[in-house]
Amino acid sequence: MSGRRPVIAFAMSESVRARVFPEPLMRQYEAVGDVAGFVTEFDSASARALLADVEVLITGWGAPRLDAALLDAAPRLEAVLHAAGTVKPYLAPEVIERGVRVSSAAAANAVPVAEYAVAMIVLAGKRVLPIARRYQELQADFDSEAAFPGMGNYGQRIGIVGASKIGRIVIEMLRAYAFEVVVYDPYLTADEATALGVVAVSLDELLRTSDVVSVHAPSLPSTRDLVDARGIDLMRRDATLLNTARGEIIDQDALTRRVVAGELFAILDVTVPWVLEPDHPLYTSDRVLLTPHIAGSLGAELGRLSGAMLDELRRIARDEPLAHEIEPDLLAITA
Amino acid sequence: MSGRRPVIAFAMSESVRARVFPEPLMRQYEAVGDVAGFVTEFDSASARALLADVEVLITGWGAPRLDAALLDAAPRLEAVLHAAGTVKPYLAPEVIERGVRVSSAAAANAVPVAEYAVAMIVLAGKRVLPIARRYQELQADFDSEAAFPGMGNYGQRIGIVGASKIGRIVIEMLRAYAFEVVVYDPYLTADEATALGVVAVSLDELLRTSDVVSVHAPSLPSTRDLVDARGIDLMRRDATLLNTARGEIIDQDALTRRVVAGELFAILDVTVPWVLEPDHPLYTSDRVLLTPHIAGSLGAELGRLSGAMLDELRRIARDEPLAHEIEPDLLAITA
Repeated sequence: MSGRRPVIAFAMSESVRARVFPEPLMRQYEAVGDVAGFVTEFDSASARALLADVEVLITGWGAPRLDAALLDAAPRLEAVLHAAGTVKPYLAPEVIERGVRVSSAAAANAVPVAEYAVAMIVLAGKRVLPIARRYQELQADFDSEAAFPGMGNYGQRIGIVGASKIGRIVIEMLRAYAFEVVVYDPYLTADEATALGVVAVSLDELLRTSDVVSVHAPSLPSTRDLVDARGIDLMRRDATLLNTARGEIIDQDALTRRVVAGELFAILDVTVPWVLEPDHPLYTSDRVLLTPHIAGSLGAELGRLSGAMLDELRRIARDEPLAHEIEPDLLAITA
Repeated sequence: MSGRRPVIAFAMSESVRARVFPEPLMRQYEAVGDVAGFVTEFDSASARALLADVEVLITGWGAPRLDAALLDAAPRLEAVLHAAGTVKPYLAPEVIERGVRVSSAAAANAVPVAEYAVAMIVLAGKRVLPIARRYQELQADFDSEAAFPGMGNYGQRIGIVGASKIGRIVIEMLRAYAFEVVVYDPYLTADEATALGVVAVSLDELLRTSDVVSVHAPSLPSTRDLVDARGIDLMRRDATLLNTARGEIIDQDALTRRVVAGELFAILDVTVPWVLEPDHPLYTSDRVLLTPHIAGSLGAELGRLSGAMLDELRRIARDEPLAHEIEPDLLAITA
């Protein structure tokens, strides 16, 4: 049980290290491994000297690309633990080909996004923000059920686009509610859908029948405009489109048109571009809740990421399998 | 299993009956019992004729008071099923003294309030509304973590004031999150707290240490100003007070003062008076989400109430115990 003490180093931007690995957490890493130090690149003589004996590299947002330069500098490298979501943009194929195991905090990073989506589904069903706005304007009592027909969270159909890591956590969390959950995912089999307690449907059926459509597909060339203008037009009146994934997955112009026409609600944590141009109608529509990409791990939630990779380091020290090792075959269909 | 067919009648306001008992649900009631009809009072000759053989009375919001007049008119009355939350204001002691069993949909009615509170706790932790407002003003990228310190839902302390029906559902739902939940309730024993997976604390400690304080105490003379001005002043900077219970339980003036001073956030579904006077600062503060009492059952959620009482009627027809029978001894400490 005592195991060995791996030699570890950290590679990410300085600002990320300060936020994701605060001092109390660094003490916990030091209790498990021997910390060689911190680098922001793999090419300098000092970085190469520091990495010479490193067995486990802890990475994060703003890490240098993990490629041949790293493998040359760290010949004893066994594992990369990525204390953030997507490791794919950082990872050259040769790292996995060389037999280095790679784990990421994508599962931990999925949690706040799923929690955010579930909260927003409840918020949408209750028409909280339009009602709050109306109340603020009127400063008097009014019949909220008459003003916002279709409200209430009981028996509504929630459409999950993408049974991704995040999508599956959302599905699991929604089991606590009296919703009917349908899912569109081209990779989801009927048996898997049954195991998840949901009904697999076509994307068209999902869009046509759901009260809230929540987008959890990965951002890939094949998911660009997955919900296109025709799909947006299928959505029922007063339905809500909730996007915490990537703006590119939906046709934003078509969505904007129907929102501005008073036909749909939208809760958008992501847009195209990342920050909308000034005076875009989505900034000011009273049918939109627009936030600047806050659903993912922020603030206190960063501790969940570094904590998850600390758990992986402990598994290495005890010669146990990693809990979140990335399977090379899955890299093609995940973001 | 087939059981008997009780003679039933409905007593509530006409508008409530239309909303809570839509036709498809009425068909289901008719499948279980013989429906004598619908009354709005118990005193007229026509009401007395209708009630003469009634064994089960289904009531709802706006029902006439259940008292000696009812017992006189309905000598065969066995049970009252109240398809709404609190039955107490409708119920004269003689009804229970006469041995009439009383059940209510208070448990079902608690669900949407609990769901609302949990969604708002997540929303508060993410600083969603202040960030959205700032984004709308700036129409440009900004550092939301720096602008709103203390954000993120991981490890925060959530203080539940009142282990009521609703409070207990909130506690149960929060088990799915990485929060530390503390509870103040003078009737909660240490063993019960352990069974709920929470820590029982004093009200002062709860207020002093919680990131979100969610009020779920019943509205009783003894809970008036339970969170008084001194208690409001104990709350930590940037904490959120969430009230879906009754405005009278907190000192609204003290809360308003600290909110306007930029020290606290507030999410208020209830106020004193029920609708605030025009120009009250809580209408316009950007640290407040103010809604006109929408957390409880509305719209589609009303179906859960009539459905719960339909289940009770089925139990009566099968001679089974009621699932939600009100225990006379509890009437004193519940709302």
